[in-house]
Amino acid sequence: MGWFVTFEGPEGSGKSTQIGLLRQALAERGVSACFTREPGGTPIGEQIRALLHDERNSAMVPEAEILLYSASRAQHVAEVIRPALARGMLVVSDRFSEATLAYQGYGRGLDLDVLERITRFATGGLQPDLVIYLDLDVEVGLARKRADTQGEWNRMDQQSLDFYRRVRAGYLRLAQQRADHWLLVDAALPIPAIHATIVNEIMALLDGAAGGAIRTDGNPTPGTT
Amino acid sequence: MGWFVTFEGPEGSGKSTQIGLLRQALAERGVSACFTREPGGTPIGEQIRALLHDERNSAMVPEAEILLYSASRAQHVAEVIRPALARGMLVVSDRFSEATLAYQGYGRGLDLDVLERITRFATGGLQPDLVIYLDLDVEVGLARKRADTQGEWNRMDQQSLDFYRRVRAGYLRLAQQRADHWLLVDAALPIPAIHATIVNEIMALLDGAAGGAIRTDGNPTPGTT
Repeated sequence: MGWFVTFEGPEGSGKSTQIGLLRQALAERGVSACFTREPGGTPIGEQIRALLHDERNSAMVPEAEILLYSASRAQHVAEVIRPALARGMLVVSDRFSEATLAYQGYGRGLDLDVLERITRFATGGLQPDLVIYLDLDVEVGLARKRADTQGEWNRMDQQSLDFYRRVRAGYLRLAQQRADHWLLVDAALPIPAIHATIVNEIMALLDGAAGGAIRTDGNPTPGTT
Repeated sequence: MGWFVTFEGPEGSGKSTQIGLLRQALAERGVSACFTREPGGTPIGEQIRALLHDERNSAMVPEAEILLYSASRAQHVAEVIRPALARGMLVVSDRFSEATLAYQGYGRGLDLDVLERITRFATGGLQPDLVIYLDLDVEVGLARKRADTQGEWNRMDQQSLDFYRRVRAGYLRLAQQRADHWLLVDAALPIPAIHATIVNEIMALLDGAAGGAIRTDGNPTPGTT
């Protein structure tokens, strides 16, 4: 069994930048890894992603949205993630189940128990060995965005602020529940510092397992250094 | 609130024929009705239907399939069925939740409890006032199909036979659980006889409600004659 690492974090947290830097760092170290993303990651998943992102589908209700994300995830787990883990690979996914719980559950207020059941159904119970969460103060994130667009404060911003505060609180609660599987990173730190922290944590994960840490099937515990 | 009627039954049971005849009979009686189908019934649902029926998507895993059917259903309920019911209309759907439970649950052996929860999430608890189930002996259905194609008995037929027996047993169990909301029709009877039974049952449903039967929001009981 390989290792399953996921990235979570709001827009503007530098998630894509860090994933790109990690890909490069692993290549330089000769660590082969499978980089993937949600929604998508498979031909069927990318069709679902296109459907989710198509502006003509603005009539989509939240329940349909969640079920589409989950359908993409079920295909992703069965077709890409589990086979790669079975080959002993490191799999790095840009978002996974935690995003559904944080955004649709905590953010939109949909029933968390139902979301967890749907997620377990889609993943067959697979959970990440390591969730790398790029944590960013919501107001800082919004201020950055306003600076970018030179926009003014409006009602949408206030709604966004409340929504993203709930999402962030949700992520932090999820992190508490599986604390030894989460790496919380302050996304306000300089990019190279964040990158170094992430690489260290992942190399420790890989080394720990090579050192013979006990790992269970499907939901391994990260090795200790 | 209007009335929600669904048709269920295997291929070869004459479901499409009966839906066509019903549409005609209601038009002649001046009863306005909304005819729809699953998967599909909305622009988003039809995109999901296309994805489900695309032969290039043969790698689709059962979990993704169920979640896609359910996403289409969530959109269908929110965008078409509930608004039409709220306008007091008769809504007739070619298949609904019972198909998921019968085919994926009883037929494929996926966890019924999880399927029921996903279905309740997708429908918000909406259930048909009346399920019209066209019941057909599985061997008769397969014999009809063999007669049509002049094919020979093979391993696929045996697999199909076992699968469709489980599906049929599943439908009959669902019918027992909500007996006063199901109309079981022997699909081996002549087409006009089946049609007459269906029209009588639906007119009784409409008349009963007009006569002041007590109906609850979202999940009305059919009126009595």
